[in-house]
Amino acid sequence: MKINADRIAGDLDLIAGMTETPGNGSGRPTFTPQWAEARDYVIKHAKDAGCESRIDSAGNVHIRQRDFGWDKSAWLSGSHIDSVPHGGKFDGVTGIVVPLEILRAAAEAKLTIPLELIIFAEEEGTTFNLGMLGSRAWAGTLSMNQLDKLRNRDGISPLDAGRPYGVVADQIGTDVIDAKNYRGLIEVHVEQGPAMWEKNIPVAIVDAINGRRQFRCTIHGVANHAGSTPMTYRYDALAAAAECIVGLERFPAMLSPAAVLTVGRIEAKPNALNVINDEVTFSIDFRSPSNEHLEAGAKAIRQAIVAIVSRRKLTADLIETEVLPAVNMDAGVVSALKAAAEKAGLKDVPTTYSGALHDAAILASLLPTAMVFVASKDGISHNPAELSRIEDIAQAAELLAAVVTQ
Amino acid sequence: MKINADRIAGDLDLIAGMTETPGNGSGRPTFTPQWAEARDYVIKHAKDAGCESRIDSAGNVHIRQRDFGWDKSAWLSGSHIDSVPHGGKFDGVTGIVVPLEILRAAAEAKLTIPLELIIFAEEEGTTFNLGMLGSRAWAGTLSMNQLDKLRNRDGISPLDAGRPYGVVADQIGTDVIDAKNYRGLIEVHVEQGPAMWEKNIPVAIVDAINGRRQFRCTIHGVANHAGSTPMTYRYDALAAAAECIVGLERFPAMLSPAAVLTVGRIEAKPNALNVINDEVTFSIDFRSPSNEHLEAGAKAIRQAIVAIVSRRKLTADLIETEVLPAVNMDAGVVSALKAAAEKAGLKDVPTTYSGALHDAAILASLLPTAMVFVASKDGISHNPAELSRIEDIAQAAELLAAVVTQ
Repeated sequence: MKINADRIAGDLDLIAGMTETPGNGSGRPTFTPQWAEARDYVIKHAKDAGCESRIDSAGNVHIRQRDFGWDKSAWLSGSHIDSVPHGGKFDGVTGIVVPLEILRAAAEAKLTIPLELIIFAEEEGTTFNLGMLGSRAWAGTLSMNQLDKLRNRDGISPLDAGRPYGVVADQIGTDVIDAKNYRGLIEVHVEQGPAMWEKNIPVAIVDAINGRRQFRCTIHGVANHAGSTPMTYRYDALAAAAECIVGLERFPAMLSPAAVLTVGRIEAKPNALNVINDEVTFSIDFRSPSNEHLEAGAKAIRQAIVAIVSRRKLTADLIETEVLPAVNMDAGVVSALKAAAEKAGLKDVPTTYSGALHDAAILASLLPTAMVFVASKDGISHNPAELSRIEDIAQAAELLAAVVTQ
Repeated sequence: MKINADRIAGDLDLIAGMTETPGNGSGRPTFTPQWAEARDYVIKHAKDAGCESRIDSAGNVHIRQRDFGWDKSAWLSGSHIDSVPHGGKFDGVTGIVVPLEILRAAAEAKLTIPLELIIFAEEEGTTFNLGMLGSRAWAGTLSMNQLDKLRNRDGISPLDAGRPYGVVADQIGTDVIDAKNYRGLIEVHVEQGPAMWEKNIPVAIVDAINGRRQFRCTIHGVANHAGSTPMTYRYDALAAAAECIVGLERFPAMLSPAAVLTVGRIEAKPNALNVINDEVTFSIDFRSPSNEHLEAGAKAIRQAIVAIVSRRKLTADLIETEVLPAVNMDAGVVSALKAAAEKAGLKDVPTTYSGALHDAAILASLLPTAMVFVASKDGISHNPAELSRIEDIAQAAELLAAVVTQ
């Protein structure tokens, strides 16, 4: 079986062109025409290589060789094809085109292999403000009622938006993973951080994924005139939010170099040139590989916000929108990947941790799971400038192929 | 001539109902149906009281008694009928219904009075991101070309949006005020600050208006993944903007208690939960009664922003979008108002300054100008909770009537 790096490069280029924002990065919110176009591209090319596909009721696509069928136990490998706004072309897509290429290479070599390619529906969280929808629903940890409350930019729930793409609302919760159909899960993904690129490490095996706590904070002040309200009479929700953001940015350094905190979304009301804002909402995304630090950080975030708004005589609603613990990968799968690396002549493939969350973190409690990371140039991700070397991606494909064919 | 406070209250209530956001404050962007409805209400009631109206090419409405005509010199009095989003019912509208009531009272008393009511088109600045459009265009300080570059929320310029409401683009710059038609300008307005209400002063005479400098600042960072980018590798445009906002908030106190600074608008890109923002734009509105402080403050604002973004290895574009100097009111008009106050039995009507800008500041260099302020409950303005007492507004009407009939 021979991995063809040029075909991988071609897939990445073509899928990058399926975007809402041509010339300005990947824009593929889940359940949009561009997202469906990319998904259909993968299904078509797999079909051409002798595969068949099915879509589960959460909208995830499953692909196996026709000759292998659905009743035997397979390795699961895949990732997501949705993107953040103006994202890069490697994030998620890499983890789909790698097993796609393995299925093509197997067809050429007339090999039947125990591999199921999966395209998870909505990983990034930017479409419905909650990440990893597809894997969570398939894992049985997200109910129809929870999905029904989410909304995309057009005010539509994933149940309604996903219906044309195979989502079956009333089967969510029953159409879930059957672990006995799987040997384990290996997700290939770009690192999205600078560590491997800087140390000139093309691929690495992930043995742990950071946990994540997310919050939505709304600060309530009093709207007033920007010209006639003395500074000492103001209850300025935006100034208070700014003070919170500055304070929160300093938190991770107090915990560990692996901890990170991001305020990604902010919305001010009335958001007018000459009016003091009376309501500002912002998001907080806090991650750490240590569950102890996650717990301590969540408490400290709340205390800091309460202290700032209280001193300013404002109020704040702080809602924790997500609690995901740090997850260790399966030692057996990690060993199998290490053995495959040695067999492929790649000495010293190191282990690392993932700062980003992935669908693998959701399934790790149900299947023996690990990940393979590919170096990201300068760690740039969620950005049109995102870049990984095709030869590094091909190396990850060799690793995965070695495990699923051994 | 007898001022009828109930009619003033009725006008205010009815106009408050003409809003894009019923139940949630006044929403009357200029050149919208709700704005036109309010303008037409005033024209109709003036017509019923024996007046006629004309609309100048900037969209300002001029109303005089039919018997008085357009060829004699009159006192000019008026304000604006547009509002900020979710604004109060007294801001601007007070200064229109007061001269409207005087025209009605004069008709009842069969008096012909030298009074022209004016409704300025767009004062707030929230419709096209520039304030006092109508008075500036009529004063000849805003050209057709400048107006053509502005855009409302629908991407339409005031020239296009205003056409159905009387704006004649190619007459902007020639159809301007002829000062010899006017004795002077007296604008009645609510204070929008807490000073008069706290000291139990129902009306005051304004002898100076704060100057204003406005800026638009765009900070450029690098978009990256919220999970996999260590804190020390970040170029976070929102964290930098937050630091700027916190720093700028402390500025006015270093200058004087009369100086104020507001960041009212903020927009982050891509504004997604799990992406570090690469571009954040925010507005700065800085005001002071001292031209020296305005100059020093503008320099300090620039220095502070440059220092913050440089330290973070980001860049910023800071564009000064408006420079309006502090303006003194006309001593003669102020004296006339003081004399009228004494005649009306109102002893000790104090003078004050205006923190907010008004159309009066634009016309002060062309006409003898002053303002009359009415107390605002707790200084709340640009807010549905804005409140002034009808009896105080009626007192302002008595003052204005005394000047125009003396």
